[in-house]
Amino acid sequence: MEVPKASDVLANELRERILAGEFPEGTVLPPERDLVSQTKMSRTTVREALRILEVQGLIKIKAGRAGGAFVHRPDRESLASSLSLLIRGRQIRLTSLLETREAVEPFCAELAARNRTDEDLAALDDANDRIEKEEGTLADFLQTNVDWHVAVATASHNELLTGFMMALSRAIYAATENEGFINADVRRTAARAHRSITKAIRDRDADAAVRKMRRHVHSYAEAVLKVEQREAITVPNGD
Amino acid sequence: MEVPKASDVLANELRERILAGEFPEGTVLPPERDLVSQTKMSRTTVREALRILEVQGLIKIKAGRAGGAFVHRPDRESLASSLSLLIRGRQIRLTSLLETREAVEPFCAELAARNRTDEDLAALDDANDRIEKEEGTLADFLQTNVDWHVAVATASHNELLTGFMMALSRAIYAATENEGFINADVRRTAARAHRSITKAIRDRDADAAVRKMRRHVHSYAEAVLKVEQREAITVPNGD
Repeated sequence: MEVPKASDVLANELRERILAGEFPEGTVLPPERDLVSQTKMSRTTVREALRILEVQGLIKIKAGRAGGAFVHRPDRESLASSLSLLIRGRQIRLTSLLETREAVEPFCAELAARNRTDEDLAALDDANDRIEKEEGTLADFLQTNVDWHVAVATASHNELLTGFMMALSRAIYAATENEGFINADVRRTAARAHRSITKAIRDRDADAAVRKMRRHVHSYAEAVLKVEQREAITVPNGD
Repeated sequence: MEVPKASDVLANELRERILAGEFPEGTVLPPERDLVSQTKMSRTTVREALRILEVQGLIKIKAGRAGGAFVHRPDRESLASSLSLLIRGRQIRLTSLLETREAVEPFCAELAARNRTDEDLAALDDANDRIEKEEGTLADFLQTNVDWHVAVATASHNELLTGFMMALSRAIYAATENEGFINADVRRTAARAHRSITKAIRDRDADAAVRKMRRHVHSYAEAVLKVEQREAITVPNGD
């Protein structure tokens, strides 16, 4: 029989109250000593419950006189970090990451063509300008590449898809940080594809956006997997 | 300036060692008192670090004589629960959930047609048999519906996509648990579509699987959103 831990019980209750909007973003939870006297739980238990919420990204504990447990809405960061734990902990293969991207990104491009704002286009153009600088290092290229892909997801104006894409891009970045994968040819091809997909998004041409993104992501995956088979590079354990 | 908390430092170190495989699944971390003497940290700090890892799904703490901190690989459960926090915490709309499903599921069906085993087909057939029982309650229908969709994702043999789908289905289940959404007509149409997609998966016809799944998910979304506009039903806060 499992007896629930007191700190879990308290964390669950506070979590529900935060999610229900009783403590809005930026407000402060009751101080530790008040929670102790209200709940009759020990100081250690209360502190543990608060730490649990902090780990889940629901509060940010600040020390000092103006300190306290500040409420924070869960964001894409917490999704990205639990996805990264899953990927590393289960040693999910690069193939699966790339397949998942093939599922998510063409749809992002389609929505982006429908929903993009001028601001979204500016972010895409900026990433395009940066990626075309041939002299950048591998890290520069990978970061700009991620920036562009995240900008497409952002332009979809679907927060959930954007969260998935941010988490995925980070993992793919880590897995392909290797000169063997990304040669000058791959870079040039990516830059060209990005320009062309950006144009479709700008023209609000959803069909072209989805088709071109599908081709881009698929051929990138093929190129990477060809190198992987040759060099037996595996997904590294870092992120 | 932010000073890292001692319990975070210890949790990070233990997490890295778990993910690096130093403590494989099912093994036990060093007991609390050993961690205290090794790290010179307080008992409270050590306990807090262990609780953090437990909340992240990396260990399971069992009390008692045969107890200890048992190592546990992160699984889809932890992804699903952080996704559910994100959805509830940011009040992500049903439209976004349904859109995300439209991105993920057709691709799952395509992969399922390629990778399905006999066991996968048995799970799909079982869900099909159950969903055709007209007399089931709404909860029965929704659960069987989720079972079938998760079975398709499982048949894709891509663990990441399956994790996404499990998390999404749960949220969509909660959002559509309403007789207004799911009438007899919606049920019959769903049952028919499931049979037809299952056939495509059985026949290893990836093109048909992706096309039919796209149509199924899209028309389901349309039906649900039509009701939503009429009744202004919003995503409930529960999961």
